[in-house]
Amino acid sequence: MKIALAQLNYHIGNFSLNCEQIIKHIEKAKTEAADLVVFSELSVCGYYPHDLLERKEFIENTRQAIDRIVEVCSGIAAIIGAPTINQSKRGKKLYNSALFIQNREIKNTIHKTLLPTYDIFDEYRHFEPNKTFEVIDFKGKKLAITICEDLWDNQPTNNSFAKSKMYSKSPLEELSKQNPDLVINIAASPFSFDQEGNRKATLIRNAIEYKLPVVYVNQVGAQTEIIFDGGSMFINQAGEVIHEMRYFDEDFRVIDTCTSETKDVQPNSQAIAKINKALLLGIKDYFSKMGFKSVTLGLSGGIDSAVVAVLAAQALGAENVRVLLMPSKYSSDHSITDAIELARNLGIEYETINIQSIVDSFEQSLSPLFSNLPADVAEENIQARTRGVLLMALSNKFGNILLNTSNKSECAVGYGTLYGDMNGGLSVLGDVYKTDVFNLARYMNRHQEIIPENIITKPPSAELRPDQKDSDSLPDYTILDDILYRYIEQNQSPDDIISEGFDPDTVNRTARMVNMNEYKRFQTPPILRISSKAFGFGRKMPLVAKYNG
Amino acid sequence: MKIALAQLNYHIGNFSLNCEQIIKHIEKAKTEAADLVVFSELSVCGYYPHDLLERKEFIENTRQAIDRIVEVCSGIAAIIGAPTINQSKRGKKLYNSALFIQNREIKNTIHKTLLPTYDIFDEYRHFEPNKTFEVIDFKGKKLAITICEDLWDNQPTNNSFAKSKMYSKSPLEELSKQNPDLVINIAASPFSFDQEGNRKATLIRNAIEYKLPVVYVNQVGAQTEIIFDGGSMFINQAGEVIHEMRYFDEDFRVIDTCTSETKDVQPNSQAIAKINKALLLGIKDYFSKMGFKSVTLGLSGGIDSAVVAVLAAQALGAENVRVLLMPSKYSSDHSITDAIELARNLGIEYETINIQSIVDSFEQSLSPLFSNLPADVAEENIQARTRGVLLMALSNKFGNILLNTSNKSECAVGYGTLYGDMNGGLSVLGDVYKTDVFNLARYMNRHQEIIPENIITKPPSAELRPDQKDSDSLPDYTILDDILYRYIEQNQSPDDIISEGFDPDTVNRTARMVNMNEYKRFQTPPILRISSKAFGFGRKMPLVAKYNG
Repeated sequence: MKIALAQLNYHIGNFSLNCEQIIKHIEKAKTEAADLVVFSELSVCGYYPHDLLERKEFIENTRQAIDRIVEVCSGIAAIIGAPTINQSKRGKKLYNSALFIQNREIKNTIHKTLLPTYDIFDEYRHFEPNKTFEVIDFKGKKLAITICEDLWDNQPTNNSFAKSKMYSKSPLEELSKQNPDLVINIAASPFSFDQEGNRKATLIRNAIEYKLPVVYVNQVGAQTEIIFDGGSMFINQAGEVIHEMRYFDEDFRVIDTCTSETKDVQPNSQAIAKINKALLLGIKDYFSKMGFKSVTLGLSGGIDSAVVAVLAAQALGAENVRVLLMPSKYSSDHSITDAIELARNLGIEYETINIQSIVDSFEQSLSPLFSNLPADVAEENIQARTRGVLLMALSNKFGNILLNTSNKSECAVGYGTLYGDMNGGLSVLGDVYKTDVFNLARYMNRHQEIIPENIITKPPSAELRPDQKDSDSLPDYTILDDILYRYIEQNQSPDDIISEGFDPDTVNRTARMVNMNEYKRFQTPPILRISSKAFGFGRKMPLVAKYNG
Repeated sequence: MKIALAQLNYHIGNFSLNCEQIIKHIEKAKTEAADLVVFSELSVCGYYPHDLLERKEFIENTRQAIDRIVEVCSGIAAIIGAPTINQSKRGKKLYNSALFIQNREIKNTIHKTLLPTYDIFDEYRHFEPNKTFEVIDFKGKKLAITICEDLWDNQPTNNSFAKSKMYSKSPLEELSKQNPDLVINIAASPFSFDQEGNRKATLIRNAIEYKLPVVYVNQVGAQTEIIFDGGSMFINQAGEVIHEMRYFDEDFRVIDTCTSETKDVQPNSQAIAKINKALLLGIKDYFSKMGFKSVTLGLSGGIDSAVVAVLAAQALGAENVRVLLMPSKYSSDHSITDAIELARNLGIEYETINIQSIVDSFEQSLSPLFSNLPADVAEENIQARTRGVLLMALSNKFGNILLNTSNKSECAVGYGTLYGDMNGGLSVLGDVYKTDVFNLARYMNRHQEIIPENIITKPPSAELRPDQKDSDSLPDYTILDDILYRYIEQNQSPDDIISEGFDPDTVNRTARMVNMNEYKRFQTPPILRISSKAFGFGRKMPLVAKYNG
């Protein structure tokens, strides 16, 4: 059987675009003589529409788009993903469905059984789980159609106190009773660098366990924070990856499920290269899907803003990046020269505004209230917030969207100024630990020096008071990031981390800083997610909790 | 049977406090000769702990607290709420449970069957639903113990395209097969003014349908955004409310389930009085649970900040409120005089900083970049953001927490400046439409004029350019709020709203403004929830969606 795998970038709620894309690729699959063309999960409306799924007109628009797609399905069969209405009088009103279309008719509607409701996933909020199973006869073969999580029945529970399996059902176990010849899985599976290989291993396990070939079609592209990386594949019944499609880009390929010989897979690449690609896609799609073109950011001479500037220039073009240098009396000379050198290397427009007169004006106006109290974090924050106001003024005047440059280590411990350097439409590095920001910088310089070496080697500093260094307030980043990764991604308790040899004071202080700063993270911009546990809606902690464990 | 209803204010993760509270009221119930004392849902850890439920030490601390409580349960039985571990090898690792404790032993552990996963509720993220049912024998009676949503089996689905029932099971229908004598429901049911009566009607329906008396114990107090209003009650098997406990306050009462005569219920009060009480409790608990004492806010002379100032003074004491007047060249004289009059009426400290010199300093620094471009929203926002920086400076210097004063109408249509007047640790009015802000002001003035009449009667203005009025940019608030309520709370489509007689352009423009401004609301402070659909985590919309329906 010849199956076309269509790995596309959808836009949530943009029915005309999604519909055109799907129809175009149905036609393309016809010209390449495919029997069947497969699109990814919720392809008609885009994944994940969240509470738009509660709106009548959204569901009507989905139905209209399906009607248009059904019309072109002659001479070929197609599988598309869409929400469909649950006709029962009880239960959630929608299913997350795969529609099998043939001869201009919806022949079968298969519903998703396992509805992920953890981390960034929220599907039980809107969908009723499937409870019945049927394979589909097509050209003498029986197809077991599944939707994403349906193949993840061995998914572990999401906690640190007792591991077991989250789901009590296995859809493929049910379907296998009907002797299928082929598994098709339509997915919306996001990227995270620390789950690398996990997805492929899951698909291979299913192929081997049920002795069935697996066709897997993922979506690609970023939907605000969440980055889908593609990598659709065909695995034979021996569990060998025969076809593997591009990562972080659209792709289309017609495969023959009978030939199990020629392997056409993607080259291996290091995690940091993937993070780099993921962030580029995240920026690019945020701008294209929001209808924005140009960007601004503050270039401090530090490594975070340097890395964001490189990403912005590569994602949007140097001509669309306009940066601002905003030195104060505490800025070192190298901050300015390093920043200018970077801007020149990138060929991006830069301007300089010295913030001192504005800061002085604030302090003068506040002096009757502050009387003679010693300078503290209030004065430091005035500097950071003055920069925030200037960047937003530029953004408002010229329509450049402000990119936030805070990294994950800072976000975690609250080392940043709310309404100051925490401003922005999108946080590029909010899920990248400081040590990985350094790795990204070195990766960016792999062919030539784009980021001046001094930016990478000098000790990190916020430059908000004389001779300030990050290390005055925070543990060394290699230690801090190691503790944070265990605490946040791995959900380890402070005691567990201490038992692995870390200094108790440092661990407890770090945990306390993370918990104390939930209120700051509540107000951060959306953060591009590249790890298995990013700050944002995938990690919801109560603000008023009294808890430091 | 004599049952003590303990309606308490818990603090999430504050195990020592919750434990002490529970033990104290067990002792109190003993002295009042109660047979059984009932506490609310997840009382041991506080409702709702969100992803703290995934942490090992949180579950261990819960278990330790339960052990302490069990120790004092001699001579009385108790029902407490807590997460317990699912010992099965499949499914989510926790249950949301009611523990029936007697003779210093946990006799029964009843799990919640219906797990609300809509709006602000997220329980299926952490809990496995119950599937087996048992009544509990106690002193010759059979108790049907249920947990909150378990009595809401008739809950409608959360969408606007087809109404039906969300759940396919009815726990009480199952339990009723075992001929119980009494229903006990432990709850964490939040307040919303537009669902008034809904809760009472549901409990009464259950009592009548199953011909059973119902003991209902709710928690009270705010957990960040969510305000629990108490109102625990006892309903006889005829569906009559015999006992009704206080709203918005802790309460404790021993009732006799046999006497169905003396009614002791709460007086009716208007919705606006309840909203007023809810907001006071919301502020009070946010400050006490976060460990904060004093507050600051900007007093513009407008109605929003006036209402917030009154609430802050009443919730925290006038001595803990310090306001800032920040006139610019566009401020009218009455703005300052009205604000000062209000501050004097409240007896709160006020100071004045004219922002003009700071704004000039910004504009001068930006003039090389702005060259001779006409003034627009960029310059307006500089004023709002200058005020934001000044308030945060005061907050940082003196530890006063900034209260946000934006109302729901503004939040909805994006009529506010991010990092300016949208700043704050807590949004007091972000779920109160402008028309209700006026109603609140009039309510506050019911005995004497606290808010100067001129603040209520003058046309709303942001005063960011000469002679600006809200009505220059927005529809009249009575029309706007009516459209917004239908669009947001009732999930009506624009076409539905137009078909009810509203002007099509106004409706479509309003819907567009709501959708365009998701990005601003993404970064707002937590908003005290008083309606059935507040902005925040109960209403999640995708940012990059292209959708205006």
